[in-house]
Amino acid sequence: MPSISHKGRSMPESPIRKLVPFAENAKKKGRKVYHLNIGQPDIKTPQVALDAVKNNHLEILEYGRSEGSEQYREKLAAYYAKKDIHISADDIVVTTGGSEALMFAMGAVADYGDEIIIPEPFYANYNGFATASGVRVVPVVSSIDHNFALPPIEAFEELITPETRAILICNPGNPTGYLYSREEIKKLAEIVKKHDLFLITDEVYREFTYDGAEHYSVMQEQGLEAHAIMIDSVSKRYSMCGARIGCLVSKNREVITTALKYAQARLSSPTYAQIASEAALQTPQSYFDEVLQEYSERRDLLISELETIEGVKVARPRGAFYCIAELPVRNTDDFARWLLESYQYNNQTVMVAPAAGFYSTPGMGTCEVRIAYVLKKEDLKAAVNILREALKVYPDKE
Amino acid sequence: MPSISHKGRSMPESPIRKLVPFAENAKKKGRKVYHLNIGQPDIKTPQVALDAVKNNHLEILEYGRSEGSEQYREKLAAYYAKKDIHISADDIVVTTGGSEALMFAMGAVADYGDEIIIPEPFYANYNGFATASGVRVVPVVSSIDHNFALPPIEAFEELITPETRAILICNPGNPTGYLYSREEIKKLAEIVKKHDLFLITDEVYREFTYDGAEHYSVMQEQGLEAHAIMIDSVSKRYSMCGARIGCLVSKNREVITTALKYAQARLSSPTYAQIASEAALQTPQSYFDEVLQEYSERRDLLISELETIEGVKVARPRGAFYCIAELPVRNTDDFARWLLESYQYNNQTVMVAPAAGFYSTPGMGTCEVRIAYVLKKEDLKAAVNILREALKVYPDKE
Repeated sequence: MPSISHKGRSMPESPIRKLVPFAENAKKKGRKVYHLNIGQPDIKTPQVALDAVKNNHLEILEYGRSEGSEQYREKLAAYYAKKDIHISADDIVVTTGGSEALMFAMGAVADYGDEIIIPEPFYANYNGFATASGVRVVPVVSSIDHNFALPPIEAFEELITPETRAILICNPGNPTGYLYSREEIKKLAEIVKKHDLFLITDEVYREFTYDGAEHYSVMQEQGLEAHAIMIDSVSKRYSMCGARIGCLVSKNREVITTALKYAQARLSSPTYAQIASEAALQTPQSYFDEVLQEYSERRDLLISELETIEGVKVARPRGAFYCIAELPVRNTDDFARWLLESYQYNNQTVMVAPAAGFYSTPGMGTCEVRIAYVLKKEDLKAAVNILREALKVYPDKE
Repeated sequence: MPSISHKGRSMPESPIRKLVPFAENAKKKGRKVYHLNIGQPDIKTPQVALDAVKNNHLEILEYGRSEGSEQYREKLAAYYAKKDIHISADDIVVTTGGSEALMFAMGAVADYGDEIIIPEPFYANYNGFATASGVRVVPVVSSIDHNFALPPIEAFEELITPETRAILICNPGNPTGYLYSREEIKKLAEIVKKHDLFLITDEVYREFTYDGAEHYSVMQEQGLEAHAIMIDSVSKRYSMCGARIGCLVSKNREVITTALKYAQARLSSPTYAQIASEAALQTPQSYFDEVLQEYSERRDLLISELETIEGVKVARPRGAFYCIAELPVRNTDDFARWLLESYQYNNQTVMVAPAAGFYSTPGMGTCEVRIAYVLKKEDLKAAVNILREALKVYPDKE
């Protein structure tokens, strides 16, 4: 029997995946499980996007253009202009989700064995995309004690080698909810210019910022045009995760030309999803205002509730819809499993994402969990209360 | 300015891509261009698939399951059973097009630097997927003089090294239209069993076989369960190229488990497209009968017309909707460009795909073109006639 080859490539598993059977078992036992572990918003998709698909008149579901339709890219450019991001349709390659845009970016800038520096904790699937592309992830630690702010420049410079090709950040961050300031983006710009690297920024949560904080895109930074690659997606912005439409944006022609070769190899992005995504650009501002108000309230509720639990430390997120919380347990992998396998409070329990999977340095994040606030407030409150009660009786405390 | 890294990875360009600007110019001059170069069928998508999307009731366009919905995979397994391919839903990972299934298969079985043997000429994007995955394509030559039949076993065995992980075939073949016989599949089965390799077969054209020939799937071969990986797609079967839904099928658990990790990293396949694909399984047999009749007539017309052109040699395809023709010119890259740039017949011209791009051995296929018969018969006839007239006056003849 031929064996899967694992000399240099071993695809990592999602940090949540191994908990799924335990969650399913809990449900089979009749328990309600509050899912604090996922990034699937419960927000309704804009009607204008849903309607565009229902009212389509296609008779042949043909390939689209590999780079996305000109019309969609033109409208996307206009959308970015409203966000003070000034690019043209030619600077955009439409992709099958932000996931594919990340794959294209990594493949474009890095050869097999090349390195990309990423502040950790980071979105776990960056590891998967890097493994698939043969790229080495080099983590630079950001800490809950500093609210996951950008590590100092020296910490990056210590890690730069001749193989380093790029720095990758997620802004605002999954899993931290951290929103990088304009000054931090300028610091990163300095580093990548000094060492001739690319700066890849995953901005799929751009619209989700709180406390009146403004998002500063890498595409707004003057003089960084040759270095900056922006990753985007409709998934979170319009609660259209199942569309699978994203894009890669850069003013560096070589990057776009190379990304386009990747795009051509896989022919095109899904056509129906592009119809939905183009229509979604007409979503009224009131939709975003309501969504932002809702997430802002959820965040406030979540953080204030978590802060009342003894021994829990929580970083205050100013973006996205996640936070990292440190729990007074020895190991959150075990705790998350115990919650599903052995615990119930009024026949209810919660599922959280152990944070070790968001770190690439062994031993990091073992006392932390990622909590997504994608549930309505009463459910969030109930879920945090279950966490509080569970921590009172959990045997393996720190 | 940071440079794209090209030590070991240089994404190949589509063999047709460089002709696109010339085709656009020809159209700007008011010329009609017959596209014999593309694999986009002109056949209508089954109404049942189109209607399913128009009548969907989604309110939140959520992520689907990474492996595809259980319901769709169950129905897919039932569909394969009718083709005498007996697998279960658990043997299937639903992918974003056959393209992604090929990427998953290559990534699962091969590490960076490992080798996959592919009979050439082959679908040009195999090169792209291999490059993206860090896998080396090792070509074994099949020849128009033998109608592109399977090369002898010895030719494969000469190429097998400790780095060889798999043999990949396309059956029926793009670009050759060649349909492998049951005996040829059995020969391949022997080789992969003897050398402990995987046999990856791209069967996206399974339904398109002519002259009453039966397709023999790698999944039908007894005793090959641990070695066989089947790639499939809805693109051609239902004229749903823009859906971007395919699948990877294997009875080897390790392959499925690894492919699933790739699937999890990119979260899910497009939701609307899965709705269309699931509904497409209800397409009545009459649809396929009509489509097959149409393609069969097109093939007969195309081949008989091509054979009347002096100096043209053509392999008779028994599957898919392509053929490879050898033309009496020195270089088909130049000829294809000349057709678009300098030639017109009653203000019309044709676009063909130069075949060198389907070979990985330098110098091969330079006198060949791939012709797709995805145009209606009167257009096909007109297009071949233009080719005939063009060859009469083309200056750079062989």
